[in-house]
Amino acid sequence: MSKTITTADILNMDRLYRMHLINTIAGYKNLNLVGTLGHRKTANLGLFNSFVHVGANPPHLGFMIRQLTVPRHTYHNIKATKYFTVNHVHKEILAQAHQASANYTENQSEFEAVGLTPEYTDVHTAPYVKESLIKIGCEYAEEHHMKLNGMIFMVGKIVEIILPENAIDDTGHLKLPEMGTLACTGLDTYFEGTQIERLPYARVGKEQKIL
Amino acid sequence: MSKTITTADILNMDRLYRMHLINTIAGYKNLNLVGTLGHRKTANLGLFNSFVHVGANPPHLGFMIRQLTVPRHTYHNIKATKYFTVNHVHKEILAQAHQASANYTENQSEFEAVGLTPEYTDVHTAPYVKESLIKIGCEYAEEHHMKLNGMIFMVGKIVEIILPENAIDDTGHLKLPEMGTLACTGLDTYFEGTQIERLPYARVGKEQKIL
Repeated sequence: MSKTITTADILNMDRLYRMHLINTIAGYKNLNLVGTLGHRKTANLGLFNSFVHVGANPPHLGFMIRQLTVPRHTYHNIKATKYFTVNHVHKEILAQAHQASANYTENQSEFEAVGLTPEYTDVHTAPYVKESLIKIGCEYAEEHHMKLNGMIFMVGKIVEIILPENAIDDTGHLKLPEMGTLACTGLDTYFEGTQIERLPYARVGKEQKIL
Repeated sequence: MSKTITTADILNMDRLYRMHLINTIAGYKNLNLVGTLGHRKTANLGLFNSFVHVGANPPHLGFMIRQLTVPRHTYHNIKATKYFTVNHVHKEILAQAHQASANYTENQSEFEAVGLTPEYTDVHTAPYVKESLIKIGCEYAEEHHMKLNGMIFMVGKIVEIILPENAIDDTGHLKLPEMGTLACTGLDTYFEGTQIERLPYARVGKEQKIL
Protein backbone atom coordinates (compact mmCIF):
# COMPACT_ATOMS: atom_id res chain seq x y z
CA MET A 1 0.00 0.00 0.00
CA SER A 2 1.36 3.42 -0.88
CA LYS A 3 0.52 6.67 0.84
CA THR A 4 0.74 10.34 -0.08
CA ILE A 5 2.26 12.99 2.17
CA THR A 6 1.14 16.52 1.37
CA THR A 7 2.87 19.84 2.06
CA ALA A 8 0.39 20.40 4.92
CA ASP A 9 1.27 16.99 6.40
CA ILE A 10 4.98 17.90 6.30
CA LEU A 11 4.45 21.27 7.94
CA ASN A 12 2.35 19.66 10.69
CA MET A 13 4.91 16.97 11.53
CA ASP A 14 6.80 16.87 14.82
CA ARG A 15 9.98 18.92 14.28
CA LEU A 16 12.46 16.05 14.67
CA TYR A 17 10.36 13.59 12.64
CA ARG A 18 10.20 16.14 9.80
CA MET A 19 13.94 16.83 10.07
CA HIS A 20 14.77 13.13 9.75
CA LEU A 21 12.31 12.54 6.90
CA ILE A 22 13.39 15.50 4.76
CA ASN A 23 17.08 14.82 5.46
CA THR A 24 16.69 11.22 4.26
CA ILE A 25 14.15 11.69 1.46
CA ALA A 26 16.58 12.09 -1.48
CA GLY A 27 18.59 8.97 -0.70
CA TYR A 28 22.21 8.23 0.19
CA LYS A 29 24.70 11.03 0.76
CA ASN A 30 28.46 11.23 1.00
CA LEU A 31 30.13 11.92 4.31
CA ASN A 32 33.20 14.13 4.60
CA LEU A 33 35.09 15.93 7.33
CA VAL A 34 35.92 19.48 6.28
CA GLY A 35 39.10 20.93 7.79
CA THR A 36 39.81 24.67 8.01
CA LEU A 37 42.25 26.89 9.88
CA GLY A 38 40.82 29.46 12.33
CA HIS A 39 42.27 32.94 12.70
CA ARG A 40 44.07 31.96 15.93
CA LYS A 41 45.47 28.93 14.07
CA THR A 42 42.87 26.64 15.63
CA ALA A 43 42.47 23.55 13.42
CA ASN A 44 38.71 23.37 12.82
CA LEU A 45 36.76 20.31 11.71
CA GLY A 46 33.14 19.89 10.68
CA LEU A 47 31.06 16.98 9.32
CA PHE A 48 29.25 17.51 6.00
CA ASN A 49 27.11 15.26 3.82
CA SER A 50 26.32 17.27 0.70
CA PHE A 51 29.33 17.28 -1.64
CA VAL A 52 28.46 17.44 -5.33
CA HIS A 53 30.44 17.56 -8.57
CA VAL A 54 30.80 21.03 -10.14
CA GLY A 55 33.01 20.18 -13.10
CA ALA A 56 36.02 17.98 -13.87
CA ASN A 57 38.19 20.34 -15.93
CA PRO A 58 39.14 22.37 -14.00
CA PRO A 59 38.02 20.18 -11.07
CA HIS A 60 35.53 21.73 -8.61
CA LEU A 61 33.36 20.48 -5.74
CA GLY A 62 30.46 22.20 -3.98
CA PHE A 63 28.70 21.64 -0.64
CA MET A 64 25.99 23.18 1.54
CA ILE A 65 26.73 25.20 4.67
CA ARG A 66 23.92 26.14 7.07
CA GLN A 67 22.65 29.65 7.63
CA LEU A 68 24.91 32.27 9.22
CA THR A 69 22.41 32.93 12.04
CA VAL A 70 25.03 31.50 14.44
CA PRO A 71 28.82 31.43 13.90
CA ARG A 72 29.78 28.90 11.21
CA HIS A 73 33.48 28.34 11.71
CA THR A 74 33.89 26.39 8.48
CA TYR A 75 32.36 29.21 6.43
CA HIS A 76 34.23 32.03 8.14
CA ASN A 77 37.55 30.19 8.02
CA ILE A 78 37.18 29.46 4.30
CA LYS A 79 36.41 33.12 3.63
CA ALA A 80 39.40 34.26 5.71
CA THR A 81 42.01 31.71 4.57
CA LYS A 82 40.63 30.69 1.12
CA TYR A 83 41.29 26.97 1.69
CA PHE A 84 39.57 23.88 3.06
CA THR A 85 40.14 20.14 3.04
CA VAL A 86 37.65 17.34 2.35
CA ASN A 87 38.43 14.06 4.13
CA HIS A 88 36.63 10.74 3.63
CA VAL A 89 35.28 8.93 6.69
CA HIS A 90 35.78 5.18 7.22
CA LYS A 91 34.44 2.94 9.98
CA GLU A 92 37.46 3.26 12.27
CA ILE A 93 37.04 7.06 12.55
CA LEU A 94 33.24 7.23 12.35
CA ALA A 95 32.67 7.91 16.07
CA GLN A 96 35.19 10.76 15.99
CA ALA A 97 33.76 12.13 12.75
CA HIS A 98 30.21 12.10 14.11
CA GLN A 99 31.35 13.83 17.30
CA ALA A 100 32.91 16.61 15.19
CA SER A 101 29.36 17.74 14.43
CA ALA A 102 28.92 18.88 18.07
CA ASN A 103 28.84 22.60 18.68
CA TYR A 104 32.39 23.40 19.84
CA THR A 105 33.50 27.01 20.33
CA GLU A 106 35.70 28.86 17.87
CA ASN A 107 38.89 28.46 19.91
CA GLN A 108 38.37 24.79 20.65
CA SER A 109 39.84 22.48 18.02
CA GLU A 110 37.46 19.68 17.05
CA PHE A 111 40.57 17.67 16.11
CA GLU A 112 41.70 17.70 19.76
CA ALA A 113 38.20 17.35 21.17
CA VAL A 114 37.33 14.22 19.17
CA GLY A 115 40.82 12.71 18.90
CA LEU A 116 41.86 13.17 15.27
CA THR A 117 45.20 14.53 14.04
CA PRO A 118 45.67 17.63 11.86
CA GLU A 119 48.19 17.20 9.03
CA TYR A 120 49.52 19.89 6.69
CA THR A 121 51.15 20.04 3.25
CA ASP A 122 53.00 22.96 1.68
CA VAL A 123 50.33 23.48 -1.01
CA HIS A 124 47.93 25.39 1.29
CA THR A 125 47.24 26.19 4.95
CA ALA A 126 44.13 24.09 5.73
CA PRO A 127 44.48 21.01 7.97
CA TYR A 128 43.86 17.51 6.61
CA VAL A 129 42.67 14.65 8.81
CA LYS A 130 45.73 12.41 9.09
CA GLU A 131 43.64 9.30 9.85
CA SER A 132 41.49 9.76 6.71
CA LEU A 133 42.50 7.70 3.66
CA ILE A 134 41.22 9.98 0.87
CA LYS A 135 41.99 13.69 1.31
CA ILE A 136 41.20 16.57 -1.03
CA GLY A 137 42.55 20.11 -0.75
CA CYS A 138 40.30 22.88 -2.12
CA GLU A 139 40.65 26.58 -2.81
CA TYR A 140 37.63 28.90 -2.43
CA ALA A 141 36.02 29.54 -5.82
CA GLU A 142 32.56 31.04 -5.29
CA GLU A 143 29.48 30.89 -3.07
CA HIS A 144 25.73 31.15 -3.60
CA HIS A 145 23.28 32.14 -0.85
CA MET A 146 19.81 30.62 -1.02
CA LYS A 147 17.17 33.34 -1.14
CA LEU A 148 14.62 31.12 0.54
CA ASN A 149 16.49 30.49 3.81
CA GLY A 150 20.08 31.75 3.70
CA MET A 151 21.77 28.35 3.30
CA ILE A 152 25.03 28.62 1.37
CA PHE A 153 26.31 26.57 -1.57
CA MET A 154 30.10 26.81 -1.29
CA VAL A 155 32.29 25.89 -4.29
CA GLY A 156 35.99 25.07 -4.19
CA LYS A 157 38.62 24.19 -6.79
CA ILE A 158 40.54 20.96 -6.14
CA VAL A 159 44.22 21.83 -5.70
CA GLU A 160 45.55 18.56 -4.22
CA ILE A 161 44.44 14.94 -3.72
CA ILE A 162 46.21 12.62 -1.27
CA LEU A 163 45.29 8.93 -1.33
CA PRO A 164 46.69 5.40 -1.11
CA GLU A 165 48.62 4.18 -4.17
CA ASN A 166 45.97 1.56 -4.89
CA ALA A 167 42.87 3.77 -4.38
CA ILE A 168 42.14 4.41 -8.07
CA ASP A 169 41.34 1.71 -10.63
CA ASP A 170 42.62 1.65 -14.23
CA THR A 171 39.66 3.68 -15.49
CA GLY A 172 40.06 6.51 -12.95
CA HIS A 173 37.25 5.38 -10.61
CA LEU A 174 37.98 5.69 -6.91
CA LYS A 175 37.57 2.26 -5.22
CA LEU A 176 35.22 3.35 -2.44
CA PRO A 177 34.26 -0.01 -0.85
CA GLU A 178 37.93 -1.12 -0.78
CA MET A 179 38.88 2.18 0.88
CA GLY A 180 36.10 1.74 3.46
CA THR A 181 34.52 5.09 2.63
CA LEU A 182 31.09 5.39 4.29
CA ALA A 183 27.83 6.92 3.12
CA CYS A 184 25.10 8.40 5.31
CA THR A 185 21.48 9.39 5.32
CA GLY A 186 19.98 12.07 7.46
CA LEU A 187 22.27 13.35 10.17
CA ASP A 188 23.02 10.17 12.10
CA THR A 189 22.74 6.98 10.05
CA TYR A 190 25.82 5.48 8.40
CA PHE A 191 26.22 2.90 5.64
CA GLU A 192 28.77 0.77 3.84
CA GLY A 193 28.38 0.33 0.09
CA THR A 194 28.46 -2.85 -1.98
CA GLN A 195 28.98 -2.46 -5.71
CA ILE A 196 26.30 -4.21 -7.74
CA GLU A 197 26.92 -2.92 -11.26
CA ARG A 198 29.01 -0.76 -13.57
CA LEU A 199 27.13 0.00 -16.78
CA PRO A 200 28.47 1.16 -20.15
CA TYR A 201 27.89 4.73 -21.36
CA ALA A 202 24.23 5.03 -22.37
CA ARG A 203 23.52 5.76 -26.05
CA VAL A 204 20.26 6.25 -27.91
CA GLY A 205 19.38 3.09 -29.86
CA LYS A 206 21.41 0.78 -27.60
CA GLU A 207 18.52 0.17 -25.19
CA GLN A 208 18.24 -3.54 -26.01
CA LYS A 209 21.72 -4.27 -24.73
CA ILE A 210 20.97 -3.52 -21.12
CA LEU A 211 17.22 -3.88 -20.72
CA MET B 1 52.00 4.01 0.47
CA SER B 2 50.15 7.23 -0.19
CA LYS B 3 50.56 9.46 -3.20
CA THR B 4 49.78 13.09 -3.98
CA ILE B 5 47.97 14.25 -7.10
CA THR B 6 48.55 17.91 -7.96
CA THR B 7 46.42 20.31 -9.99
CA ALA B 8 48.87 19.90 -12.87
CA ASP B 9 48.54 16.11 -12.67
CA ILE B 10 44.74 16.42 -12.87
CA LEU B 11 44.83 18.78 -15.84
CA ASN B 12 47.22 16.44 -17.67
CA MET B 13 45.11 13.31 -17.17
CA ASP B 14 43.35 11.52 -20.01
CA ARG B 15 39.90 13.14 -20.31
CA LEU B 16 37.86 10.06 -19.34
CA TYR B 17 40.22 9.06 -16.51
CA ARG B 18 39.94 12.59 -15.07
CA MET B 19 36.15 12.57 -15.50
CA HIS B 20 35.83 9.30 -13.57
CA LEU B 21 38.26 10.37 -10.83
CA ILE B 22 36.70 13.77 -10.18
CA ASN B 23 33.18 12.35 -10.39
CA THR B 24 34.03 9.73 -7.73
CA ILE B 25 36.39 11.73 -5.51
CA ALA B 26 33.84 13.05 -2.97
CA GLY B 27 32.31 9.63 -2.24
CA TYR B 28 28.86 8.09 -2.61
CA LYS B 29 26.02 9.96 -4.26
CA ASN B 30 22.29 9.51 -4.44
CA LEU B 31 20.63 8.44 -7.66
CA ASN B 32 17.30 9.84 -8.78
CA LEU B 33 15.25 9.97 -11.95
CA VAL B 34 13.90 13.48 -12.54
CA GLY B 35 10.60 13.66 -14.41
CA THR B 36 9.38 16.78 -16.23
CA LEU B 37 6.72 17.62 -18.80
CA GLY B 38 7.83 19.02 -22.17
CA HIS B 39 5.91 21.73 -24.00
CA ARG B 40 4.40 19.20 -26.40
CA LYS B 41 3.39 17.11 -23.36
CA THR B 42 6.33 14.77 -23.85
CA ALA B 43 7.08 13.06 -20.51
CA ASN B 44 10.82 13.68 -20.02
CA LEU B 45 13.13 11.72 -17.75
CA GLY B 46 16.75 12.32 -16.74
CA LEU B 47 19.15 10.61 -14.32
CA PHE B 48 20.78 12.79 -11.65
CA ASN B 49 23.15 12.05 -8.77
CA SER B 50 23.54 15.31 -6.87
CA PHE B 51 20.49 15.92 -4.67
CA VAL B 52 21.20 17.81 -1.46
CA HIS B 53 19.11 19.04 1.46
CA VAL B 54 18.22 22.75 1.36
CA GLY B 55 16.04 23.00 4.46
CA ALA B 56 13.35 20.95 6.22
CA ASN B 57 10.79 23.65 7.10
CA PRO B 58 9.64 24.47 4.52
CA PRO B 59 11.15 21.40 2.80
CA HIS B 60 13.48 22.04 -0.14
CA LEU B 61 15.91 19.98 -2.25
CA GLY B 62 18.59 21.15 -4.68
CA PHE B 63 20.52 19.44 -7.49
CA MET B 64 23.06 20.24 -10.22
CA ILE B 65 22.14 20.57 -13.90
CA ARG B 66 24.86 20.75 -16.54
CA GLN B 67 25.66 23.82 -18.64
CA LEU B 68 23.10 25.15 -21.13
CA THR B 69 25.57 24.84 -24.04
CA VAL B 70 23.27 22.14 -25.48
CA PRO B 71 19.49 21.79 -24.84
CA ARG B 72 18.82 20.57 -21.29
CA HIS B 73 15.26 19.32 -21.37
CA THR B 74 15.02 18.95 -17.61
CA TYR B 75 16.07 22.58 -17.05
CA HIS B 76 13.87 24.04 -19.76
CA ASN B 77 10.84 21.99 -18.73
CA ILE B 78 11.20 23.03 -15.07
CA LYS B 79 11.42 26.68 -16.12
CA ALA B 80 8.37 26.36 -18.38
CA THR B 81 6.10 24.24 -16.16
CA LYS B 82 7.50 25.02 -12.66
CA TYR B 83 7.37 21.38 -11.52
CA PHE B 84 9.57 18.29 -11.45
CA THR B 85 9.52 14.89 -9.78
CA VAL B 86 12.35 13.06 -8.01
CA ASN B 87 12.10 9.26 -8.15
CA HIS B 88 14.34 6.78 -6.31
CA VAL B 89 16.03 4.02 -8.31
CA HIS B 90 16.08 0.39 -7.12
CA LYS B 91 17.81 -2.63 -8.67
CA GLU B 92 14.83 -3.76 -10.78
CA ILE B 93 14.73 -0.46 -12.69
CA LEU B 94 18.47 0.31 -12.74
CA ALA B 95 19.07 -0.63 -16.38
CA GLN B 96 16.16 1.59 -17.47
CA ALA B 97 17.29 4.42 -15.20
CA HIS B 98 20.85 4.29 -16.54
CA GLN B 99 19.59 4.27 -20.13
CA ALA B 100 17.57 7.45 -19.39
CA SER B 101 20.91 9.29 -19.31
CA ALA B 102 21.30 8.78 -23.08
CA ASN B 103 20.86 11.84 -25.27
CA TYR B 104 17.27 11.54 -26.55
CA THR B 105 15.70 14.38 -28.52
CA GLU B 106 13.17 16.78 -27.05
CA ASN B 107 10.15 15.09 -28.61
CA GLN B 108 11.19 11.57 -27.70
CA SER B 109 9.99 10.48 -24.26
CA GLU B 110 12.70 8.73 -22.25
CA PHE B 111 9.88 6.92 -20.42
CA GLU B 112 8.87 5.22 -23.68
CA ALA B 113 12.42 4.74 -24.91
CA VAL B 114 13.67 2.97 -21.77
CA GLY B 115 10.42 1.27 -20.74
CA LEU B 116 9.20 3.11 -17.66
CA THR B 117 5.66 4.37 -17.02
CA PRO B 118 4.69 8.00 -16.41
CA GLU B 119 2.18 8.53 -13.61
CA TYR B 120 0.42 11.76 -12.64
CA THR B 121 -1.35 13.15 -9.57
CA ASP B 122 -3.64 16.16 -9.35
CA VAL B 123 -1.17 18.19 -7.27
CA HIS B 124 1.01 19.22 -10.25
CA THR B 125 1.71 18.43 -13.92
CA ALA B 126 5.12 16.66 -13.79
CA PRO B 127 5.28 12.90 -14.44
CA TYR B 128 6.33 10.48 -11.70
CA VAL B 129 7.98 7.13 -12.47
CA LYS B 130 5.28 4.58 -11.65
CA GLU B 131 7.82 1.80 -11.04
CA SER B 132 9.77 3.87 -8.50
CA LEU B 133 8.96 3.23 -4.82
CA ILE B 134 9.81 6.67 -3.35
CA LYS B 135 8.55 9.66 -5.35
CA ILE B 136 8.84 13.34 -4.52
CA GLY B 137 7.01 16.18 -6.28
CA CYS B 138 8.82 19.55 -6.33
CA GLU B 139 7.93 23.10 -7.32
CA TYR B 140 10.60 25.42 -8.77
CA ALA B 141 12.00 27.70 -6.05
CA GLU B 142 15.24 29.29 -7.29
CA GLU B 143 18.36 28.62 -9.35
CA HIS B 144 22.02 29.61 -9.10
CA HIS B 145 24.38 29.62 -12.07
CA MET B 146 28.04 28.84 -11.38
CA LYS B 147 30.26 31.67 -12.54
CA LEU B 148 33.15 29.32 -13.18
CA ASN B 149 31.50 27.07 -15.76
CA GLY B 150 27.76 27.73 -16.08
CA MET B 151 26.56 24.66 -14.19
CA ILE B 152 23.22 25.28 -12.47
CA PHE B 153 22.16 24.57 -8.90
CA MET B 154 18.38 24.11 -9.12
CA VAL B 155 16.24 24.31 -5.96
CA GLY B 156 12.69 23.03 -5.57
CA LYS B 157 10.14 23.01 -2.76
CA ILE B 158 8.71 19.59 -1.87
CA VAL B 159 4.96 19.63 -2.53
CA GLU B 160 4.16 15.91 -2.38
CA ILE B 161 5.76 12.62 -1.30
CA ILE B 162 4.43 9.24 -2.42
CA LEU B 163 5.87 6.12 -0.79
CA PRO B 164 4.99 2.70 0.60
CA GLU B 165 3.14 2.68 3.94
CA ASN B 166 6.12 1.04 5.67
CA ALA B 167 8.89 3.20 4.13
CA ILE B 168 9.39 5.50 7.14
CA ASP B 169 10.48 4.33 10.60
CA ASP B 170 9.09 5.67 13.90
CA THR B 171 11.69 8.45 14.06
CA GLY B 172 11.00 9.80 10.55
CA HIS B 173 14.01 8.16 8.84
CA LEU B 174 13.35 6.71 5.42
CA LYS B 175 14.31 3.00 5.38
CA LEU B 176 16.58 3.06 2.33
CA PRO B 177 18.03 -0.49 2.34
CA GLU B 178 14.57 -2.01 2.89
CA MET B 179 13.23 0.06 -0.02
CA GLY B 180 16.12 -1.08 -2.24
CA THR B 181 17.18 2.50 -3.02
CA LEU B 182 20.59 2.51 -4.75
CA ALA B 183 23.56 4.84 -4.47
CA CYS B 184 26.13 5.58 -7.17
CA THR B 185 29.56 6.97 -7.74
CA GLY B 186 30.74 8.63 -10.88
CA LEU B 187 28.37 8.25 -13.79
CA ASP B 188 28.16 4.49 -14.12
CA THR B 189 28.82 2.57 -10.88
CA TYR B 190 25.94 1.54 -8.64
CA PHE B 191 25.81 0.40 -5.02
CA GLU B 192 23.52 -1.06 -2.38
CA GLY B 193 23.84 0.25 1.17
CA THR B 194 24.15 -1.68 4.42
CA GLN B 195 23.45 0.23 7.62
CA ILE B 196 26.30 -0.07 10.11
CA GLU B 197 25.37 2.53 12.73
CA ARG B 198 22.92 5.16 13.92
CA LEU B 199 24.58 7.50 16.40
CA PRO B 200 22.98 9.80 18.99
CA TYR B 201 23.00 13.59 18.50
CA ALA B 202 26.56 14.82 19.15
CA ARG B 203 27.02 17.17 22.12
CA VAL B 204 30.13 18.88 23.47
CA GLY B 205 31.38 17.05 26.58
CA LYS B 206 29.77 13.72 25.63
CA GLU B 207 32.77 12.53 23.62
CA GLN B 208 33.52 9.63 25.97
CA LYS B 209 30.20 7.99 25.30
CA ILE B 210 30.94 7.15 21.71
CA LEU B 211 34.72 7.15 21.38
